Amino acid sequence: MARRGLLLILSSPSGAGKSTLSKRLMAWDPTLRFSVSATTRAPRPGEVDGRDYYFRTRDEFLAAVRGGEMLEHAEVFGNFYGSPKAPVEQAMREGRDTLFDIDWQGGQQIRNSSLGRDVVSVFVLPPSIAELDRRLRERAQDSDEVIAGRMAKSRDEISHWAEYDYVLINKDLDLAEEQLKMILVAERLRRDRQPDLPDFVRGLNGEFDKR
Amino acid sequence: MARRGLLLILSSPSGAGKSTLSKRLMAWDPTLRFSVSATTRAPRPGEVDGRDYYFRTRDEFLAAVRGGEMLEHAEVFGNFYGSPKAPVEQAMREGRDTLFDIDWQGGQQIRNSSLGRDVVSVFVLPPSIAELDRRLRERAQDSDEVIAGRMAKSRDEISHWAEYDYVLINKDLDLAEEQLKMILVAERLRRDRQPDLPDFVRGLNGEFDKR
Repeated sequence: MARRGLLLILSSPSGAGKSTLSKRLMAWDPTLRFSVSATTRAPRPGEVDGRDYYFRTRDEFLAAVRGGEMLEHAEVFGNFYGSPKAPVEQAMREGRDTLFDIDWQGGQQIRNSSLGRDVVSVFVLPPSIAELDRRLRERAQDSDEVIAGRMAKSRDEISHWAEYDYVLINKDLDLAEEQLKMILVAERLRRDRQPDLPDFVRGLNGEFDKR
Repeated sequence: MARRGLLLILSSPSGAGKSTLSKRLMAWDPTLRFSVSATTRAPRPGEVDGRDYYFRTRDEFLAAVRGGEMLEHAEVFGNFYGSPKAPVEQAMREGRDTLFDIDWQGGQQIRNSSLGRDVVSVFVLPPSIAELDRRLRERAQDSDEVIAGRMAKSRDEISHWAEYDYVLINKDLDLAEEQLKMILVAERLRRDRQPDLPDFVRGLNGEFDKR
């Protein structure tokens, strides 16, 4: 029996360091597959279709949802975002883990799906709200109104921390990166994720073959 | 609210490297408390009361069991072994984790006790039965009968691997040590083991205060 890949969901308010942590984890483990989201929002300068997002029209996106091709999807600020299902299922069959950089709505939908037992979810928190607001202001070239909208979304996101398996406080990025790696390594060592145990264990316990 | 210490239970057939792994983990993390077992068996040369075991008479041991002072206990090869409860409860109150080097019977009893939700259990497997038998023969200065008894106990122990949260295959001791550390670090990052999250998280979600 081949190992079944797990789904590692990383969520956080924007500005808490989730994207950087995702990139570092991907660079560290070449077997990990990143789940590229589909979206109806317009590409930003430098964004590449198929790498940063799958850019889709509203009609294309909604057709995919109706066709059951999305593992999760949600509307945020008037745009749709979603995780295509097929590549995740393929990775799982190949025994590869998939990393999701998605918000609480997506996380909740995947946890409640038929793949829920394969989910490991990690919530990344900023060290303080003041620090989060500072980061959001610093990087936004946008209007006050847009910034205020982002801050409200951040608070909404944070309010869902208790739905996650693990919580990381990103005070020091290197430390948070190490902790995230350890969570992934530990979860791979869980008994129910190790079908490839030595034969003598199998022989001694029928439980193994029942899974 | 102070952090509540967890109970890390390490089990394995004898000869799989559990004691060495325990010692290395204790040396690595000075906050960890080792649960010294009580036993009615006679001390072996070099063993110190209170460090290796609490050596007790049968009457003393059974009185402690009747008094509810043992977290778990079992009879193995005609001797009693058990884990005193008081030091574990004190460590938990101090937010310190306790390491148990015990067999499947002890692990099962603690998991089924009121402290069950605080348990993280790890089963250490040897790379093969042949290797395990070789290790048992090598280190025993005992009769064939005693060795055969140990091998039978090893197989009995291994048959309980599926009751554990994690499984480590000790092919390379250094690797197994790293994996064990990662399991401990990851388990400490579980959301429900982090009461000391920043205040702003608490303010945003009543869930926190309910625990």
